[in-house]
Amino acid sequence: MAHNDPEAGYTDLGFARVDTDRLSRTGDPEVVYGAGKSTEQVVAILRHLHQAHPERAILATRVAQPDQVVAALDGLPVRADLEARAVVLGTMPTTTGLVGIVAAGTSDGPVAAEAELSVLVHGGGTTRITDVGVAGLHRVLASREQLDACDCIIVVAGMEGALPSVVGGLTGTPVIAVPTSIGYGASFGGLAALLGMLNSCAPGVVVVNIDNGYGAGVHAARIARRGGAG
Amino acid sequence: MAHNDPEAGYTDLGFARVDTDRLSRTGDPEVVYGAGKSTEQVVAILRHLHQAHPERAILATRVAQPDQVVAALDGLPVRADLEARAVVLGTMPTTTGLVGIVAAGTSDGPVAAEAELSVLVHGGGTTRITDVGVAGLHRVLASREQLDACDCIIVVAGMEGALPSVVGGLTGTPVIAVPTSIGYGASFGGLAALLGMLNSCAPGVVVVNIDNGYGAGVHAARIARRGGAG
Amino acid sequence: MAHNDPEAGYTDLGFARVDTDRLSRTGDPEVVYGAGKSTEQVVAILRHLHQAHPERAILATRVAQPDQVVAALDGLPVRADLEARAVVLGTMPTTTGLVGIVAAGTSDGPVAAEAELSVLVHGGGTTRITDVGVAGLHRVLASREQLDACDCIIVVAGMEGALPSVVGGLTGTPVIAVPTSIGYGASFGGLAALLGMLNSCAPGVVVVNIDNGYGAGVHAARIARRGGAG
Amino acid sequence: MAHNDPEAGYTDLGFARVDTDRLSRTGDPEVVYGAGKSTEQVVAILRHLHQAHPERAILATRVAQPDQVVAALDGLPVRADLEARAVVLGTMPTTTGLVGIVAAGTSDGPVAAEAELSVLVHGGGTTRITDVGVAGLHRVLASREQLDACDCIIVVAGMEGALPSVVGGLTGTPVIAVPTSIGYGASFGGLAALLGMLNSCAPGVVVVNIDNGYGAGVHAARIARRGGAG
Amino acid sequence: MAHNDPEAGYTDLGFARVDTDRLSRTGDPEVVYGAGKSTEQVVAILRHLHQAHPERAILATRVAQPDQVVAALDGLPVRADLEARAVVLGTMPTTTGLVGIVAAGTSDGPVAAEAELSVLVHGGGTTRITDVGVAGLHRVLASREQLDACDCIIVVAGMEGALPSVVGGLTGTPVIAVPTSIGYGASFGGLAALLGMLNSCAPGVVVVNIDNGYGAGVHAARIARRGGAG
Amino acid sequence: MAHNDPEAGYTDLGFARVDTDRLSRTGDPEVVYGAGKSTEQVVAILRHLHQAHPERAILATRVAQPDQVVAALDGLPVRADLEARAVVLGTMPTTTGLVGIVAAGTSDGPVAAEAELSVLVHGGGTTRITDVGVAGLHRVLASREQLDACDCIIVVAGMEGALPSVVGGLTGTPVIAVPTSIGYGASFGGLAALLGMLNSCAPGVVVVNIDNGYGAGVHAARIARRGGAG
Amino acid sequence: MAHNDPEAGYTDLGFARVDTDRLSRTGDPEVVYGAGKSTEQVVAILRHLHQAHPERAILATRVAQPDQVVAALDGLPVRADLEARAVVLGTMPTTTGLVGIVAAGTSDGPVAAEAELSVLVHGGGTTRITDVGVAGLHRVLASREQLDACDCIIVVAGMEGALPSVVGGLTGTPVIAVPTSIGYGASFGGLAALLGMLNSCAPGVVVVNIDNGYGAGVHAARIARRGGAG
Amino acid sequence: MAHNDPEAGYTDLGFARVDTDRLSRTGDPEVVYGAGKSTEQVVAILRHLHQAHPERAILATRVAQPDQVVAALDGLPVRADLEARAVVLGTMPTTTGLVGIVAAGTSDGPVAAEAELSVLVHGGGTTRITDVGVAGLHRVLASREQLDACDCIIVVAGMEGALPSVVGGLTGTPVIAVPTSIGYGASFGGLAALLGMLNSCAPGVVVVNIDNGYGAGVHAARIARRGGAG
Repeated sequence: MAHNDPEAGYTDLGFARVDTDRLSRTGDPEVVYGAGKSTEQVVAILRHLHQAHPERAILATRVAQPDQVVAALDGLPVRADLEARAVVLGTMPTTTGLVGIVAAGTSDGPVAAEAELSVLVHGGGTTRITDVGVAGLHRVLASREQLDACDCIIVVAGMEGALPSVVGGLTGTPVIAVPTSIGYGASFGGLAALLGMLNSCAPGVVVVNIDNGYGAGVHAARIARRGGAG
Repeated sequence: MAHNDPEAGYTDLGFARVDTDRLSRTGDPEVVYGAGKSTEQVVAILRHLHQAHPERAILATRVAQPDQVVAALDGLPVRADLEARAVVLGTMPTTTGLVGIVAAGTSDGPVAAEAELSVLVHGGGTTRITDVGVAGLHRVLASREQLDACDCIIVVAGMEGALPSVVGGLTGTPVIAVPTSIGYGASFGGLAALLGMLNSCAPGVVVVNIDNGYGAGVHAARIARRGGAG
Repeated sequence: MAHNDPEAGYTDLGFARVDTDRLSRTGDPEVVYGAGKSTEQVVAILRHLHQAHPERAILATRVAQPDQVVAALDGLPVRADLEARAVVLGTMPTTTGLVGIVAAGTSDGPVAAEAELSVLVHGGGTTRITDVGVAGLHRVLASREQLDACDCIIVVAGMEGALPSVVGGLTGTPVIAVPTSIGYGASFGGLAALLGMLNSCAPGVVVVNIDNGYGAGVHAARIARRGGAG
Repeated sequence: MAHNDPEAGYTDLGFARVDTDRLSRTGDPEVVYGAGKSTEQVVAILRHLHQAHPERAILATRVAQPDQVVAALDGLPVRADLEARAVVLGTMPTTTGLVGIVAAGTSDGPVAAEAELSVLVHGGGTTRITDVGVAGLHRVLASREQLDACDCIIVVAGMEGALPSVVGGLTGTPVIAVPTSIGYGASFGGLAALLGMLNSCAPGVVVVNIDNGYGAGVHAARIARRGGAG
Repeated sequence: MAHNDPEAGYTDLGFARVDTDRLSRTGDPEVVYGAGKSTEQVVAILRHLHQAHPERAILATRVAQPDQVVAALDGLPVRADLEARAVVLGTMPTTTGLVGIVAAGTSDGPVAAEAELSVLVHGGGTTRITDVGVAGLHRVLASREQLDACDCIIVVAGMEGALPSVVGGLTGTPVIAVPTSIGYGASFGGLAALLGMLNSCAPGVVVVNIDNGYGAGVHAARIARRGGAG
Repeated sequence: MAHNDPEAGYTDLGFARVDTDRLSRTGDPEVVYGAGKSTEQVVAILRHLHQAHPERAILATRVAQPDQVVAALDGLPVRADLEARAVVLGTMPTTTGLVGIVAAGTSDGPVAAEAELSVLVHGGGTTRITDVGVAGLHRVLASREQLDACDCIIVVAGMEGALPSVVGGLTGTPVIAVPTSIGYGASFGGLAALLGMLNSCAPGVVVVNIDNGYGAGVHAARIARRGGAG
Repeated sequence: MAHNDPEAGYTDLGFARVDTDRLSRTGDPEVVYGAGKSTEQVVAILRHLHQAHPERAILATRVAQPDQVVAALDGLPVRADLEARAVVLGTMPTTTGLVGIVAAGTSDGPVAAEAELSVLVHGGGTTRITDVGVAGLHRVLASREQLDACDCIIVVAGMEGALPSVVGGLTGTPVIAVPTSIGYGASFGGLAALLGMLNSCAPGVVVVNIDNGYGAGVHAARIARRGGAG
Repeated sequence: MAHNDPEAGYTDLGFARVDTDRLSRTGDPEVVYGAGKSTEQVVAILRHLHQAHPERAILATRVAQPDQVVAALDGLPVRADLEARAVVLGTMPTTTGLVGIVAAGTSDGPVAAEAELSVLVHGGGTTRITDVGVAGLHRVLASREQLDACDCIIVVAGMEGALPSVVGGLTGTPVIAVPTSIGYGASFGGLAALLGMLNSCAPGVVVVNIDNGYGAGVHAARIARRGGAG
């Protein structure tokens, strides 16, 4: 059932059609979404993408067992980010521009880590500001210069998800809000934060899926790469 | 089917059993919930409560046609608050303590008005701070002394409902959050604000139903009446 | 990445910015939300807050392993409340006023315990009334005098969450309703109780998040501290 | 497309297949659900059912224009119940047993009226207790003897829908709870009351759809007819 | 904190106020809801209720470890129903009337078992009809005489929950529908079945909470005890 | 901004890019979705599609003012179906195969009409069976031969949406279920019927959006055209 | 309680009424839904259906332990499909027609496998196209000829569920969309994909329950068997 | 209650605190959210912002009566955009960079218009691509060069909201998805499109609230202004 047509723009590994054409279409190679895939499948796709794009860092997110993936790729330039539950194969790019990664609380750390790694793999620079939730506003107010210096800001927050509105009111830097599943009861797994961010009264706040640090990172890196050239 | 037993603690008007005992149980007379009641029914209940408690102001909320209710009670000490869609029959009490009524936006006005009137009818004093949403934090920060001077603060906000978290982080005064139905799309009629407020990361923020200025006002007045004596 | 600016009003522990200014802003020190934090993180923040505010009791809630936290703080005035899954470091304050903690059922115990401990840590006094659900009204009716004697009442209930409406109709003492996740099927993890309490027909009932005994406790203690002085 | 086979157990009017067999299967003739039907359609079905079962009262519920239906059936034993938005064609039956119709508030009147009429059409007797919401418990406590004397109790309530739990705790008479769409905000059109009633802690409370006085009435009448014989 | 006032109508065990007055109010003793209670608590409440009402069977439902409860009550007339996850202490009553327990599928067995046991403990007789889902209508059609012979029918079904509508169209016997959590995907834990049953087009179908065999059983037994006397 | 490239496979009318290539890709021309379009826009697109495919009937659904559309196309072979709120321009095709259109209630008529017209426009034959809801099973059982004779059956139902399960259990003909928004309260605008149909226990029942007679019609016609050739 | 009446069209195994009449009504024997059934129950029903229909393949889906079921049926023509979590007893039929099984991602494999096996057991032929999600459109565009050659296409997708709309726009072959629970956060267990597919703008896309490969397979096979004869 | 402190960074109009400091903080002046405001209020705020920032264009969105606002501002450089329901006061800026406004259907026009106007007011250039829904992929494929030439792309779609995923797979230009309330039934007012977009499998797609063309426009303009300098 598997075949491999170089003209096709993809490679059929049987269980997956690897999109080798994505780099030329979008400027970035395919990223491996690890959830629901076996270690063997993640390894095989990573290896194939690395061969197709040896000059680029290949990212795998939501990897159940990052250490096993790294072990299976022994001998290749691979490393795991355990906080982000991610693996990178290939050399990290030099970075352009600057993305602020702002997290409301300590528990939002893994999502912020996934966002930061995604920015870096996609060629943006990063700076991280942790635990500046709105119950103690002076913490984020103390970071205003840092925020203004960024090309783009990723704001990660759970519970009521109010921090993106506050940041979006303090600066004109584009804000990407990432709701997290941190919370309990009527947070409904991050729904409260998601709805709050979608209804932000601050201008220009955009939102990604709950816990989707990766998506925020890609969008931010693309902004940083453009804006960072200035 | 209607009867009237003075021992019973209520008067049966046929379409309603007026709770004349509530004042002795709770310190406040019954309030008329006007929604779904005809002008005649509202008038009849108001008149009966006024007769039972001539020394107290009787409140009717969510009145479809306040002017008609006032007209029907001509000759009695009655007035309408059109912004709050409410009617008061009887003399307003002297007030004790101070409740801050803080509204995030101009459109939250009617709910803030209902809250303020409810505080006043239940014997609390009020001060109102309007349009201090989190997209321009300096507006609420400029009111910090005012907030600290209150016995209790009612914070009214729609959209993402972030303002109570910000206020709750700035002061130790008890905060009552009132989500409003202001917003569109994923605000789902105030659900986003409600969930945000329930998940507030600021300590001790309590919440009432969407657009329920009345409920917030009663709770706040009872705090103000106690605390205001200090 | 960590630094410590005494002027800043917070201490940056790297994984957390501890809000050392909160006591001066709000009258109460920061409380540690233990969910999603490691024992080491909880211990480090508790220790830092204790150093900053040695005269105050510091509370950590939703602690996964309270015993380990206590063990790690050996030598300091620390104790665990296993029912509430909480830890307190520092000396408990003397109390002012009285908060009633009313629980509808036996299974609501842990949430009631968190509420009670939170009141005590924040300086309010408490009295507890257990298992007085509305299916046997005589149980709560037997407690009416106790309810009237309180400065504030926290009512904890799962399933249909009807108890706050009943209590709110019996007394003018301010009522804070805490829905719990006790129930099954269409209780949807406490949503039924939450919605019921938000729609209470009793005047002035306010609500906190599902299972949020802590939030109710802070609000209640602040009322008790004010009212209790009278 | 229309035909009429006496053996078939139904009559095909083209736009409707009237279930003339239902009486023999279930002991009661078909009831016309008026919503979404034109006056002409309601009249035609009523007329046909009356011809098929001249000795029984035929009920049409949720009729948009009851007066027009009555006018069109001029000369037949027909009457409208405007509060219930219903029409009855044929002679009302003598009643057996007793169903209590208990309503929490004045605004629940139309649903209570539909329930009461449905009981009567299906041969049960009724007694009505109005405006006994849980915020003033003495009102329903005053009716305990009345409740015990019933074969079945229909409890109609909106908002938090707590009344069925209270009634179900006071008496062993079977309770049918009818949530109504009375309320606002987080009542979500009666959802809060519905969920509350489904999660009732009182034993044996059963529930029908929001505003479904008719369904409660049929169930209650069938209980009353059986029990009333005792 | 525990006390015991015989006049009070309840016994305070500290962790529970046992409602010893319920039998005189409702005709049935309190039932122990085992969820969230320890084996020790279930045993203590059962033992107390048995002492208070030695002539009645005392039921505990949703018991995590029925065998341990039985072991702890060794020497008393106690037995476990493992399918229903329930325990009964005391002698089963003689039965009156007949309740049909109809289940749509094999997987609905535990809920049907809880319903059947609840009917029996509350003095109703039972007959059980299993696996007659609507995809093979001839199975339930074959049981029509059985259905007509009942005083009341409990219909247990998951997935789309269509069976109560079919049964309710076949007979005039009162139908109580019990949605179960059997299903997957868009069944949303029984929500689809619950909504289906609430919207039943068959007259007089009433509904209880998802998986609430107990509640259906109590309601049914009360009908059977009345009707069965005829 | 508008242009027209015959190679492009579409015509840009400025406000719309008419998909003139769809016929060659899928065998059927584009259908005009009238909701949210002005009469002028509907007319312009219909006219353009008619010119592009003069031999085919062009359908417009959910047309706000069918009569005005017909008037504007005076002189062309156009007709309105008012029950279905639809317009057809061009000659109706000869039909192949047979699709049964089964509706549970009279109020489901408009959706059934849209389904039937869609089948006919797409070349399938139809037969309609009306008002055979599950509360009177003999009505649909009387139609079993008709059902077996179809190539495909569209079952239209609101409320609990049980009819597709019953039909799907009676015959092996493929069933397409169409939930309708007929109902009230917990029908939530057709959600109950939708969920019921998605959870059908009958094998092979497929579902379309609430009130989407059109989608069911296209799917059914394509089956009928294939199967009808046999 | 168990009996066996050959005339009845079913066999009562006590815990199940096996529908032996289904083959004659619908052309296909009953399929065993394994969820919530013990291995012994699955084996017993499979064995009974195999005896009743020795010439047909009998399918059991959602089997917790397929290997144990196979072991228990040792000696009979039985096999497990571990990816699909299914068991087949009896000889597979020869196939008619062709069903395309198109999956958006690697993680959708188990649902696609259940769909494919269900088609084969019901007599349709299959071809499988894997990992052609819309983020790399060239992959599905490369399969257009394959899609056109099918009698029916099953499209399996999680996350946003966009693939059925794309496929439905490329071909006139009937499309059955299967949403999967693949995703996180606001996918809400497949709800996002389900809603997306129900709202598809492509004509004639029909939908089944989340993860319901079986239902899609039966519908598709019935189309293929008819169309495949052409 | 109104005052005006130039140091404060806002002007208190009584009903509103106009945020005159926003321009210096964020680079853009405040935008007037017209919903829930009277014509007089909109006019007053517009006039005040125009006076504070005479060199900038001031935008008011969701204006109920744009023509009346324009009439009231007669003599000033004001114009209405009726499709977008918006008003602009002041001179439009010269633009930098290019934002693609891609709409799936004709009915998405008003939201696309609001997005386009917002981009222009905030200094970005625009190009609009209309009616390129996924049911006819060749339409959007024909626009690939246009998409690649943009600095940012706003994709507006209702129903299943699949277009952003398709566009996001075709190009590396940052994509902002705007779900619209276009659709019916299970679109639930745009919820289906919103969830679909949040779960997009294309990398880096970000989302705003349903129908929020304004928010998308601000975010896009800020990207274009940065990127456009390159």
